[in-house]
Amino acid sequence: METFHTIINRRSIRKYKFKKIEDEKINLLLKAAMYAPSAMNLQPWHFIVINSESVLNEIVKSIPHAEMIKQSGNAILVCGDSSLEKNESWLIQNCSAAVQNILLTAYDMQLGSCWIAVHGMPDVVNNVVRQFSLPSNIIPIALIAFGYPEEEVKTEERFRLDKIHYNKW
Amino acid sequence: METFHTIINRRSIRKYKFKKIEDEKINLLLKAAMYAPSAMNLQPWHFIVINSESVLNEIVKSIPHAEMIKQSGNAILVCGDSSLEKNESWLIQNCSAAVQNILLTAYDMQLGSCWIAVHGMPDVVNNVVRQFSLPSNIIPIALIAFGYPEEEVKTEERFRLDKIHYNKW
Repeated sequence: METFHTIINRRSIRKYKFKKIEDEKINLLLKAAMYAPSAMNLQPWHFIVINSESVLNEIVKSIPHAEMIKQSGNAILVCGDSSLEKNESWLIQNCSAAVQNILLTAYDMQLGSCWIAVHGMPDVVNNVVRQFSLPSNIIPIALIAFGYPEEEVKTEERFRLDKIHYNKW
Repeated sequence: METFHTIINRRSIRKYKFKKIEDEKINLLLKAAMYAPSAMNLQPWHFIVINSESVLNEIVKSIPHAEMIKQSGNAILVCGDSSLEKNESWLIQNCSAAVQNILLTAYDMQLGSCWIAVHGMPDVVNNVVRQFSLPSNIIPIALIAFGYPEEEVKTEERFRLDKIHYNKW
């Protein structure tokens, strides 16, 4: 039940030691992302690894609540490819599963991470499209900050019986 | 790296031994779901556990490609609460992270599972809303079949360098 343990104990980390992550570790995060399930196994995603200081500084202007990436020094922008997956809801679902795999693998590697919203805010999506000159079929979904954690966040109780129904609403 | 191993080896299972899953195991799956990250930690989800034969038979008529749940004998309908999370994209993203946690925990428990699309198909969403008489704020996102696997699905290589970009598109 190691995976369950990871799921329960992973928390969003917002304070980081500034330190670059080795390419091999980043590749493991991206591999985990690419093993997410997707409709018809289309794997409709792309990943922009961001660790250049000037790009990090620029993205903080494009995306609200992303300041922590200046501290983490590392981020991944998860994008959907709408030419592969034309159903927008499925594109979001598939990319979100990929994001969750990255967050869990980061925890598994003793790294901290945080899911930062991009899709769902049209202005922010436009900023990101402009900043990265994304092709028209590439939709930014979420930014993930990750790096060596500088805080410990305790798990709180989240299990709620009132969220569970049996065979009917 | 147990969690990474789970992520890489989990595959969609479509053949099952018909056998009910114990409530304690189902609660672990639901606990994992409820520890998914959500915007502002709103936890905007509900879960309908489905294991009544008549309800399983009915849902196969509502949702395409769900026939396997008659074999698995167990399913969870993951729903979003749009009164808690008004941003539809974020609702989908949060619920998808919850779905992925369920799939990974199922694998961790030697159970098979499969993500079956609901949201993204308005007719199917309407069918499900009608079948379960869902309140107007409750949006069905995905159905998960789960149970004792009757097949082994090998992992294929999915890591692709052409999906990775560095600091720019």
